[in-house]
Amino acid sequence: MKLKNIAGIFLIGMFAFSCKAQKKAIVSTETASQKSILFPKGEKITNANFTGTAYLQMLIAADSLNTTSVGNVNFEPGARTKWHLHPGGQILLSTDGVGYYQEKGQPKKILRKGDVIKCPPNIQHWLGASIDPYFVKVAITNTKNGAPVWLEAVTNEIYRSLNK
Amino acid sequence: MKLKNIAGIFLIGMFAFSCKAQKKAIVSTETASQKSILFPKGEKITNANFTGTAYLQMLIAADSLNTTSVGNVNFEPGARTKWHLHPGGQILLSTDGVGYYQEKGQPKKILRKGDVIKCPPNIQHWLGASIDPYFVKVAITNTKNGAPVWLEAVTNEIYRSLNK
Repeated sequence: MKLKNIAGIFLIGMFAFSCKAQKKAIVSTETASQKSILFPKGEKITNANFTGTAYLQMLIAADSLNTTSVGNVNFEPGARTKWHLHPGGQILLSTDGVGYYQEKGQPKKILRKGDVIKCPPNIQHWLGASIDPYFVKVAITNTKNGAPVWLEAVTNEIYRSLNK
Repeated sequence: MKLKNIAGIFLIGMFAFSCKAQKKAIVSTETASQKSILFPKGEKITNANFTGTAYLQMLIAADSLNTTSVGNVNFEPGARTKWHLHPGGQILLSTDGVGYYQEKGQPKKILRKGDVIKCPPNIQHWLGASIDPYFVKVAITNTKNGAPVWLEAVTNEIYRSLNK
């Protein structure tokens, strides 16, 4: 009977301990998830320059003294820009997920967290998320020569062929 | 006796379960830590423009078509730049830790992950890590008007007074 009581106390203790350990595991996961968000997701992009769902959080606007603008773009799986070009060039910093970047006539590049791209002025290209998962990048745009020039959409057929 | 056996089986089961939960907690923490590194730490900065220990990983070099350069700077606790200015301006993206940024004659700003700063051209300023912890930021520099102008060091006395 005494042994049963001791076993009972052990059991209650182990339940308490295991619950605490489980809680710790969940807390760690939540923290990791929160920490992976570097910048806010921003507002849904509603213009016709994107296919699928993407979000933009502007971080820094260009001005007359420093013509560089910085924005955070969050592409949901399958979302991508139309073909386009930047008259002043653009720099991309991949911060999360998996993305694609392709210049006209070149094979696509796969972008992962920490990858950087220098897109020269007036080079036609598109970029976006892989089919799965999403893709997040910081876009650093030199606006000195004017706004981007938007071209045709990347069709589902072209996009799918790039995923083979 | 039968009840004791059942209690014993429960005990073994709970030990196994609690160990598994603990292991999960540790794995989550390790993953979070690994994920927090966005860009490589880079090379130790050996020039006289910094006080304390800092590391630079150049990400994008400026060129004649796009005069924007991008670098990742990792400041160990207490490390900071000298006072300096950028003739073309600079944009800072805080990606980890806690940092300070101060323009001449202004109170210092505390920078945390996700904070962004636009430092106008020719404004004297310094930046660096807090006393604890470290600080990591992406520096986006418009080099169109030339290299930074480096000025006097931020003395220990000034730095300490800023931490009060």
